[in-house]
Amino acid sequence: MLKHVEQMLRQTFDAICEGVEAMDGTRFREDVLTLPGGTIVVDRILEDGNVFERAGMNFATVYTPLSPEMVRVAMGQHADPSAPPVEGAVASVTSLSLVIHPHNPHAPTAHANYRYFQLSVDGQPDSWWFGGGADLTPSYLYEEDASHFHQTLADACDRFDPTFYPRFKQQCDEYFYLPHRGERRGVGGIFFDTLNDRPAETLLEFVSACAASFVPSYLPIVERRASLSFTPEQKQWQGLRRGRYVEFNLIHDRGTTFGLKSDFVRPQSILMSLPLIARWTYDHHPAPGSPEDSLLTVLRQPRPWLEAATAPAYDTMLVESHI
Amino acid sequence: MLKHVEQMLRQTFDAICEGVEAMDGTRFREDVLTLPGGTIVVDRILEDGNVFERAGMNFATVYTPLSPEMVRVAMGQHADPSAPPVEGAVASVTSLSLVIHPHNPHAPTAHANYRYFQLSVDGQPDSWWFGGGADLTPSYLYEEDASHFHQTLADACDRFDPTFYPRFKQQCDEYFYLPHRGERRGVGGIFFDTLNDRPAETLLEFVSACAASFVPSYLPIVERRASLSFTPEQKQWQGLRRGRYVEFNLIHDRGTTFGLKSDFVRPQSILMSLPLIARWTYDHHPAPGSPEDSLLTVLRQPRPWLEAATAPAYDTMLVESHI
Repeated sequence: MLKHVEQMLRQTFDAICEGVEAMDGTRFREDVLTLPGGTIVVDRILEDGNVFERAGMNFATVYTPLSPEMVRVAMGQHADPSAPPVEGAVASVTSLSLVIHPHNPHAPTAHANYRYFQLSVDGQPDSWWFGGGADLTPSYLYEEDASHFHQTLADACDRFDPTFYPRFKQQCDEYFYLPHRGERRGVGGIFFDTLNDRPAETLLEFVSACAASFVPSYLPIVERRASLSFTPEQKQWQGLRRGRYVEFNLIHDRGTTFGLKSDFVRPQSILMSLPLIARWTYDHHPAPGSPEDSLLTVLRQPRPWLEAATAPAYDTMLVESHI
Repeated sequence: MLKHVEQMLRQTFDAICEGVEAMDGTRFREDVLTLPGGTIVVDRILEDGNVFERAGMNFATVYTPLSPEMVRVAMGQHADPSAPPVEGAVASVTSLSLVIHPHNPHAPTAHANYRYFQLSVDGQPDSWWFGGGADLTPSYLYEEDASHFHQTLADACDRFDPTFYPRFKQQCDEYFYLPHRGERRGVGGIFFDTLNDRPAETLLEFVSACAASFVPSYLPIVERRASLSFTPEQKQWQGLRRGRYVEFNLIHDRGTTFGLKSDFVRPQSILMSLPLIARWTYDHHPAPGSPEDSLLTVLRQPRPWLEAATAPAYDTMLVESHI
């Protein structure tokens, strides 16, 4: 299964890179690390391009022993705090991660990560799961962009299980929450982890569909925003929002925390998610009713983003499933 | 004792603010929070001044219940991991914190923090300690600046105990370490915590001397660097170093971690330590032998900074104390 997931993620990685390069007119710089035992880490980075300020893509397959603490971090909220520490664990992980920060403050940042995790304990297969998701972080709110992003993900989810999108949308809003700011990182998307409730083959198809939806969910949004004019003040506001992005990733993001605690992932691979430039200023409050304030309202109180046409259809399915 | 420390820190806070304002020619903006029960938090912030890009100063006296987890965080490495959780704790803390980031990449960032911590459990006094220190974070290494900063701190320490400076210098190098980068945050200074090994009155005098040394340890350095000319590339390098500053503060700094986990300190007060602008770029390596590379060498391998004249005197004292 690991090999199948690896192949799918690698193809998707290449396809997304091609899409980003075609839009920017710049090639990614590639940096590949291979280690004895089959570990491979591929970083592709594009900095100060025509459209993108910083786009970092990472594909990795890693085989590594995990300390009991790292097993707990890897399992996240699914780790049973009362369970004894897991000794002698070896992880096999294959994953695709990307974060794309465009120059234009009207064009949102996007993140996606899909991964498959296998845990062996004392040489015996112990558990496996899929995790992943994608989310959108605008500096300025365009409702049609948020709806488009969510609709594309919902379409991918709905083919497999009508409960996936609403559940994973909610998990995304919960996960990308910055408690000291009382804000979500952005307008959300989907987020799932330790998913293993049906055959791995089925979940591979589901994750493939999600990963394949990244390009159509995101690049059309950049296409329509990247050439809008903007002011220095709007660029500064984008910098402040990127400061929050840095706060979330360094303090809360499990992938970042896990990566930096491990000694097998290079910091530059993990911190590719950070923006080229981030700003902080003291106790900034946008004027009430301003576009900046509208964004904050949505970050403080997540909204449903799907069109009315989808919601009833989904409600109907739920009702039917109870009959 | 809390009142005495509070009075001393408040006076020092005002004196440092005056020194910074006089140099910059700009006034701090002040924001004061008072809460029932005697808590007071004073933020003073100067952003985009003539000399300083961002200077954040905080004086606070806080009375607050602490969860068992927060007691552990507050005690840091001195917490006994096998000890039972401390329930019913109330903390009384008075502290002075500041971080000053100049515009000019030749002028270093400085940080200082001095604090007194009293813990009561179930209404009974349980323990108290002093903590604090000061450290210097240059983007370009001027050895005379590092030596001056260390010498001023050593002079303050040596009046009380000849073992203080070497011990606290080493603790500073250990504390301000960013493991995933293999670098210290800067060229160090002094750092001490849970200091309660002699009468509180003596330690108050010691901490007063350290706090009073901040202005003479730092402002003369800014004075001689703030008007040097610099290139856009040097400003970018400063941005990268500020990115590391952000990494350290958000991931490792105990004051930041403690503050953000608490619900009694406002995030803007805690995050005043962050720079106005920080940058990230992929896997940056300065040219060997360049000024940027010289800085990294020192961050990877801390150096003694005191003049030879001081070191033998200190060695002699150590030898004498063994006779």
